[in-house]
Amino acid sequence: MNRLVDELASLPGIGEKSAGRLADHLIRLPRERVQRLTDAITDARENVHFCSKCYTLTDTEICPVCSNDTRDHGTIMIVEDTRDMQAYEKTGKYSGVYHVLQGAISPMLGIGPNDIRLKELMTRLQNEEVSEVIIATNSSLEGETTAMYISKLIKPTGIKVTRIASGVPVGGDLENIDEITLLRALDGRVEL
Amino acid sequence: MNRLVDELASLPGIGEKSAGRLADHLIRLPRERVQRLTDAITDARENVHFCSKCYTLTDTEICPVCSNDTRDHGTIMIVEDTRDMQAYEKTGKYSGVYHVLQGAISPMLGIGPNDIRLKELMTRLQNEEVSEVIIATNSSLEGETTAMYISKLIKPTGIKVTRIASGVPVGGDLENIDEITLLRALDGRVEL
Repeated sequence: MNRLVDELASLPGIGEKSAGRLADHLIRLPRERVQRLTDAITDARENVHFCSKCYTLTDTEICPVCSNDTRDHGTIMIVEDTRDMQAYEKTGKYSGVYHVLQGAISPMLGIGPNDIRLKELMTRLQNEEVSEVIIATNSSLEGETTAMYISKLIKPTGIKVTRIASGVPVGGDLENIDEITLLRALDGRVEL
Repeated sequence: MNRLVDELASLPGIGEKSAGRLADHLIRLPRERVQRLTDAITDARENVHFCSKCYTLTDTEICPVCSNDTRDHGTIMIVEDTRDMQAYEKTGKYSGVYHVLQGAISPMLGIGPNDIRLKELMTRLQNEEVSEVIIATNSSLEGETTAMYISKLIKPTGIKVTRIASGVPVGGDLENIDEITLLRALDGRVEL
């Protein structure tokens, strides 16, 4: 029992107390439900891997987006991780494909360009017919650094490079918005 | 005492209970502090009015921004209210002037184009040398409606009309951002 509590408590977001409660719950479950849980964990661990094209997490060799012929394979959106890709997938309005960096450049954390899937991106751009690369890394310091780096890398290839807009979020009231976002919104203003 | 409680309770954000507490506090204050408070209220009511140029709230005939000659009077930023103007003033980086609509068009609330300071804006555009109008109404339904309306109104004059950018706020992680903002950010992407 102590071993189980320790194992659970080592997971992110689970403290000593919740680990105890979880363990208590688990040992009372019917045997087959516990089996289903451990199978799901093992299966995921065994079968989920990076898509060999876009590097998102998937349980098929090529992810459903990359293997969908109705999508526009000439437009690649670059995101930091699979959750960001899922956020755009949920909108249901983006018809291109993705490239998932699985991270962002962070000098502070010692994550350099070689630690994210950038080489793989450049290989794709060489081998595929790509007309536009949309950089959709987060609007954080790391995301912006990564965006700048990628843009400089791609520019010489002549492929169009765009960055998703930074500004006032939809529904936002100016008086409640931070100054940096206000200045970005001003700098990024578009002609009507 | 009851009259005071009723008066206080009629103010926005003050309920019956807080009104009671406030009244209790007020009657225990030294006479001169009460006088200072009532004077401040009366003064504000008597002396604060709309700037005769930009319609922000001010206690001078022309507000400090409009009367500042070092600012760029050829660039006018349109905002809904004085608090939005103050938000941009706090950034310290905007050097143009403002036009405060004192509201936004809202068919739902029955607020039409004639209920906000639009006629006054058009008069300014006729009489002043303006090279750019930056529409910085909120990113709400009303703010967007107002922005569209103003842009159509100004277009025929040939004056450049821009809209502050809508998109991912600075520091934002895509996975936590609403779908509409994600789509706006995608639509508003800029070439790097």
